[in-house]
Amino acid sequence: MPSADPLLSDPFPFRLAKDALIVAASPFHPSRDLPTGSMSGLAGAGAGQVAEVVSSYDLDSPVFRAHEGGKLTITATQQLRDRDDLSLLYTPGVADVSMAIAENPALANRFTSKRNTVAVVSDGTAVLGLGDIGPLGAMPVMEGKAVLFKHFADVDAAPVCIETGSVDELVETIARIAPTYGGINLEDISAPRCFEIEARLKERLDIPVFHDDQHGTAIVVLAALINACRLQNRSMADLRVVVSGAGAAGVAVTRLLQRAGVADVVVCDSRGVISLERTDLQDHKPRIAATTNPRGVTGSIGEALAGADLFVGVSGGSIAEAELARMAPEAMIFALANPTPEVHPDIAHKYASIVATGRSDFPNQINNVLAFPGVFRGALDSGAKQITESMKLAAAEAIAAVVTDPTPEEIVPSVFTPGVAEAVAEAICRVAASQ
Amino acid sequence: MPSADPLLSDPFPFRLAKDALIVAASPFHPSRDLPTGSMSGLAGAGAGQVAEVVSSYDLDSPVFRAHEGGKLTITATQQLRDRDDLSLLYTPGVADVSMAIAENPALANRFTSKRNTVAVVSDGTAVLGLGDIGPLGAMPVMEGKAVLFKHFADVDAAPVCIETGSVDELVETIARIAPTYGGINLEDISAPRCFEIEARLKERLDIPVFHDDQHGTAIVVLAALINACRLQNRSMADLRVVVSGAGAAGVAVTRLLQRAGVADVVVCDSRGVISLERTDLQDHKPRIAATTNPRGVTGSIGEALAGADLFVGVSGGSIAEAELARMAPEAMIFALANPTPEVHPDIAHKYASIVATGRSDFPNQINNVLAFPGVFRGALDSGAKQITESMKLAAAEAIAAVVTDPTPEEIVPSVFTPGVAEAVAEAICRVAASQ
Repeated sequence: MPSADPLLSDPFPFRLAKDALIVAASPFHPSRDLPTGSMSGLAGAGAGQVAEVVSSYDLDSPVFRAHEGGKLTITATQQLRDRDDLSLLYTPGVADVSMAIAENPALANRFTSKRNTVAVVSDGTAVLGLGDIGPLGAMPVMEGKAVLFKHFADVDAAPVCIETGSVDELVETIARIAPTYGGINLEDISAPRCFEIEARLKERLDIPVFHDDQHGTAIVVLAALINACRLQNRSMADLRVVVSGAGAAGVAVTRLLQRAGVADVVVCDSRGVISLERTDLQDHKPRIAATTNPRGVTGSIGEALAGADLFVGVSGGSIAEAELARMAPEAMIFALANPTPEVHPDIAHKYASIVATGRSDFPNQINNVLAFPGVFRGALDSGAKQITESMKLAAAEAIAAVVTDPTPEEIVPSVFTPGVAEAVAEAICRVAASQ
Repeated sequence: MPSADPLLSDPFPFRLAKDALIVAASPFHPSRDLPTGSMSGLAGAGAGQVAEVVSSYDLDSPVFRAHEGGKLTITATQQLRDRDDLSLLYTPGVADVSMAIAENPALANRFTSKRNTVAVVSDGTAVLGLGDIGPLGAMPVMEGKAVLFKHFADVDAAPVCIETGSVDELVETIARIAPTYGGINLEDISAPRCFEIEARLKERLDIPVFHDDQHGTAIVVLAALINACRLQNRSMADLRVVVSGAGAAGVAVTRLLQRAGVADVVVCDSRGVISLERTDLQDHKPRIAATTNPRGVTGSIGEALAGADLFVGVSGGSIAEAELARMAPEAMIFALANPTPEVHPDIAHKYASIVATGRSDFPNQINNVLAFPGVFRGALDSGAKQITESMKLAAAEAIAAVVTDPTPEEIVPSVFTPGVAEAVAEAICRVAASQ
């Protein structure tokens, strides 16, 4: 059993502010409040089966129409016109390619789709903010992620939704199918299982394993902070940072900010500041207490916010205005819970000069899609066997650098800003080449 | 533990005559006999990595060029142009689709790619005639199979190459990832493991599981026999059949012929006729002895061939001409081993009026691609949860019926004959609707 990461976290519930373009809680579910469910014809492609399926959702609404038949297709890159093509792409020709790979496995990276394919793996236990809805419920999200991989970085992404099991079972399943892929993007797997699963797979496999809910979030938060510091001419080393939430994103953000030079991070969970004085700390929280909070702050989150320069919310819930008022002048607030930020931007601006959220309808959206496509593009292109901490730092710097002239309303690129994935991929390749 | 199929087979070695378009043993390996290996630049997509890889294969030959970069790509079926599209295909819109599926899992067959996606699963233990070359070596073959699935039946097929393990481990792995797919095509998994793996997965899963090396072969053999009998105005019930090979294909062919009405099948392994008098029978061979060979033939395969109407070779090796001479008048020889049939067609024609092989350069090629694309097309379209024996019979009849006017040189359609997969799919749907 490999040892898990020292900063791994706990089951403190939070809603991760990732990948979100929330405008309203559910603009696509007009029928949700209707007293009776709608009926709609289903299902399969249908030739031999016509079944009526009851759903409380309006299956004819635009979002369901956009998902009709699934969002992905798998096609050949080569033409199959005749027997000659068939004998090249399949038997007997393929036998030589198989034998060459058996002789030298590295050739799989040149002559198979492994070269450009990432598995987007979930067990459906923590899908978006929806909780444990199972592998089938996760499918539309994993397919959507695959659409983004393709669109932003020309990565072939294959959803793999796994029947929920123990950590051992999930690690074993993912490791066994890993030869098929050039990388593993873990997604929407509940904490704290996700930490051990990622750590064990990283140790076991020779392809990159990346839990996007952790590291994608951390990379984009750091990118935003880099530009915020540029804008305010501050040094990271001098910042006082409060992270609200000690789950997947909170732990990953804390660690990456520390790697980037932030010395003073205080992490809070639902019971307040995580400090060495707490006697109720379980799982990985003692380790958080031991590696953060250098001034030994105790008490409520308000105590931590006194004099703080940056608040990072990855916890859900809300922060009282009186506590925000204790922050230092020229403070920064990144309130990333979705769809409801821990602090509404209108309130946040009263106490902070730079504000970011997870929402697309406010400036400075912290969205994982700025990171993960380029991270895997770079990893595949460089043949990197792991996504290292140095790569994450370089990715954050690359995202930040895309914004040539940061303003308080633009510390990160928008989702559709051209060149972000390319810049991230280039940064990953650069670090890979130097390692 | 589910009970395995009663006719499951044994480790008797044979080379399966499936999917083959063999013209020569290895026309694509011009360098194989060269004393020194060739060098070629590799690998990855390459931005950050340039490695020289030694291979004894000519990596610049046409077949390797056809495989460069892999043969598959995964693309979106929907346009992602702007934030509006993003909010439909991904967050926040996707959340409603996920919740609707969590509420009613049947909706996954309408709103996810599961609807049209089959996993092509191998552990690389019996790849073509190459033996156990591992999951990476299997990749080019599984990708080729996926190309065929798409070309012939518009099925999205996702290769899944699995690190070899015990039967328990493979069953567990495949079952856990099954929610992603609408069907499982098992491929190139060694006997006798393949039998138990398929049987257990069929019992455990609610999607079709189909070991093509068994059932694809059996369906096309039966299709050929149906037309051969039409041509000769014979009844299956009156035939004496000898099957050489008691492995995956031999067992499946035997069983399907019996279902189709053949009463007199004698199965031979490398030691001769499988009969109740044999004391060396292991694994599933006693069951073969109990369910075949009604006349109690004993001895060598020559004894079985005395008076036989049909020889089916799925064993490799060769049959002595003197033994073939013992067959009945107007006999049929299906010699399916690849690249070298058990009986060369030139010899076979001396003793048989109808001859089939696995090769594309002779008439009557028995090729699985006539079956598997349409089988899964029909299964997906009908929502069938299993590929039943009735479906296999109907598929064979449908393939046979594509040849409207059989001749001794055309008892099966050719690989590129239009309409085969459609006919098979329709047959599967028809049976599914009646069950």
